[in-house]
Amino acid sequence: MSSDGVVTAPEGSAAEVAEAFAASSPESSRSRTLVWQDPVATASAGATMTGMEYMTAVVTGQVPPPPIAVTMRLRPVELEEGRVIFEGEPGEEHYNPIGVVHGGYAATLLDSALGCAVHTTLPAGVAYTSLGLEAKFVRPITRNTGRVLCEASVLYRGRRQATAEATLTEAASGKLLAHGVATCMILGEAV
Amino acid sequence: MSSDGVVTAPEGSAAEVAEAFAASSPESSRSRTLVWQDPVATASAGATMTGMEYMTAVVTGQVPPPPIAVTMRLRPVELEEGRVIFEGEPGEEHYNPIGVVHGGYAATLLDSALGCAVHTTLPAGVAYTSLGLEAKFVRPITRNTGRVLCEASVLYRGRRQATAEATLTEAASGKLLAHGVATCMILGEAV
Amino acid sequence: MSSDGVVTAPEGSAAEVAEAFAASSPESSRSRTLVWQDPVATASAGATMTGMEYMTAVVTGQVPPPPIAVTMRLRPVELEEGRVIFEGEPGEEHYNPIGVVHGGYAATLLDSALGCAVHTTLPAGVAYTSLGLEAKFVRPITRNTGRVLCEASVLYRGRRQATAEATLTEAASGKLLAHGVATCMILGEAV
Amino acid sequence: MSSDGVVTAPEGSAAEVAEAFAASSPESSRSRTLVWQDPVATASAGATMTGMEYMTAVVTGQVPPPPIAVTMRLRPVELEEGRVIFEGEPGEEHYNPIGVVHGGYAATLLDSALGCAVHTTLPAGVAYTSLGLEAKFVRPITRNTGRVLCEASVLYRGRRQATAEATLTEAASGKLLAHGVATCMILGEAV
Repeated sequence: MSSDGVVTAPEGSAAEVAEAFAASSPESSRSRTLVWQDPVATASAGATMTGMEYMTAVVTGQVPPPPIAVTMRLRPVELEEGRVIFEGEPGEEHYNPIGVVHGGYAATLLDSALGCAVHTTLPAGVAYTSLGLEAKFVRPITRNTGRVLCEASVLYRGRRQATAEATLTEAASGKLLAHGVATCMILGEAV
Repeated sequence: MSSDGVVTAPEGSAAEVAEAFAASSPESSRSRTLVWQDPVATASAGATMTGMEYMTAVVTGQVPPPPIAVTMRLRPVELEEGRVIFEGEPGEEHYNPIGVVHGGYAATLLDSALGCAVHTTLPAGVAYTSLGLEAKFVRPITRNTGRVLCEASVLYRGRRQATAEATLTEAASGKLLAHGVATCMILGEAV
Repeated sequence: MSSDGVVTAPEGSAAEVAEAFAASSPESSRSRTLVWQDPVATASAGATMTGMEYMTAVVTGQVPPPPIAVTMRLRPVELEEGRVIFEGEPGEEHYNPIGVVHGGYAATLLDSALGCAVHTTLPAGVAYTSLGLEAKFVRPITRNTGRVLCEASVLYRGRRQATAEATLTEAASGKLLAHGVATCMILGEAV
Repeated sequence: MSSDGVVTAPEGSAAEVAEAFAASSPESSRSRTLVWQDPVATASAGATMTGMEYMTAVVTGQVPPPPIAVTMRLRPVELEEGRVIFEGEPGEEHYNPIGVVHGGYAATLLDSALGCAVHTTLPAGVAYTSLGLEAKFVRPITRNTGRVLCEASVLYRGRRQATAEATLTEAASGKLLAHGVATCMILGEAV
């Protein structure tokens, strides 16, 4: 720590530091290889479809999963207009420094489900962007939680904005883990 | 799609689907190997330190980075009591289905910085848990954004709750990408 | 405006300015007299009851309504453990400078219903405090909206925190006007 | 309470119940008369001005205060492009059933300041609407708090959305009472 109470980091990414620890302590180290496809090509193809068509292609595996789905081990498993269910498998690679799955994992699942629920309501040529996310974390998620389910529903769909709500539950017990709401802006709808 | 308008997914995780695409289309596929250390052992050691001591150990690399730091390519780079700066390198592995970095990436950085800012105010034996996150997404993040910085400051630190605010900016330009606030519950402080 | 682009207000409250306008333009001025009872005495009595007992006393008129209920023309009309319905009658006295009912009106109703829903779950001797409110405004409220209904339900009730969600609808049409979520801290529950 | 645990209210508004209590217990009853001017006429005139022009007219008393300013005893006292300060005088008429000023009071001040900060950035012919409010309540407000100050600043101003942050403090001590953020949609800006 410097004399003014400010601590600064040395050079080196988290990945490099983890690899150095792995070299000296292989017994407590783990690894996983992520494989994904160029997401921009897939998204460009999706822009010409209705939201239901594109999300159906994602759900049924006609197009490659978006990379975040691989990284965060999540995917949509059920879909209808205005409502989606995602599943996720939180793992040790999503842990935070205080020994549980990072809140960003739940936030990512909530944001995915909320955005996709709105996406299913869009005609071809109309896009959306999420303006924000309000997430509530009510129970910890750990590497022992197992499969989780995130269900989102559209609450309001106007011409310029849409809102949706979502819950994240432990699949085995149905216990609530987190919940959230979001506002999306609708782009290109006739006003 | 079933006759009732509900689409359901076949068996198979996103990782399995991505690997099948990779086998047939290797030219548009990419991969990255994550390496990390058991996070629970590190967190347990941290529970006996003050927040500043533990976060200093994380910043300076005395303890392994939490796995989420590897997965999301983020790390704390500056630290003092009540204020932290994280950096991140959003990549293609964080892309969502609409062709930009997933909102969960910004949410994870914001949540990391907000929580760690509160953590730096804790004496030994006192813990915190994040009760939620309110994130605002104001500009898209892409694989061309490069390094991002997330600075968080504690706004209120009571005996039972603390609140903090954070901004996420593009390092090269200083442009605001996202911002957020959070409430943390303080556990074990004398009331 | 001063030379630096900063505008500052002269002396005088909004009420004094409105009264001066009323003196010169009585034809476009309106008035309403609020009557209320000392709220601290009532709240002190309530602190010894269970949440259901106290809220039942409020709903059935055994204790004076809290002053905000008079000022904002709102009241609880239905109550069970973990769920409440409020009604409100937004009026011209709640208008903002851009010609519709102020967002604070919806926020007040949402916050009332969310807090009271949590309150109904508390045993005697246990208190709560709201840590925040996340409100979404989806349709404007005007002096022509008429009666509105706000229904709130507890989503999670732990020993230290509770979360709830609420919707605000136009009574006549059932149209959604606003919705929200809140986190409350529970004080005095055995942990 | 009915046999199913549901309590329902008798006929009669909160105002009527308060007046009945006042008749029987005049010694613990108080009253205040609100006076205001038709807000729609003022708002219509404002729609042709820039945001700074209209807000300057409000601040300097050239137009009648919006009714909510009278009801909630608040007003803007300082103004420049992208930043405003409101003051408020929370009173007993804003009390909730648990014996402190209702969270809706802080929410109304935050929402006022956040919206007006955005409003000051608008050219003539461009409007805004608040999409929501995220408020944090960190210290209680009582009838003894006295004057409060709410300062809001625009964080992001795009063509379709703007975000702002605000703090609410006790004027005498500078202590933080609440803080918040909001997203506003911009309507009519050339995109």
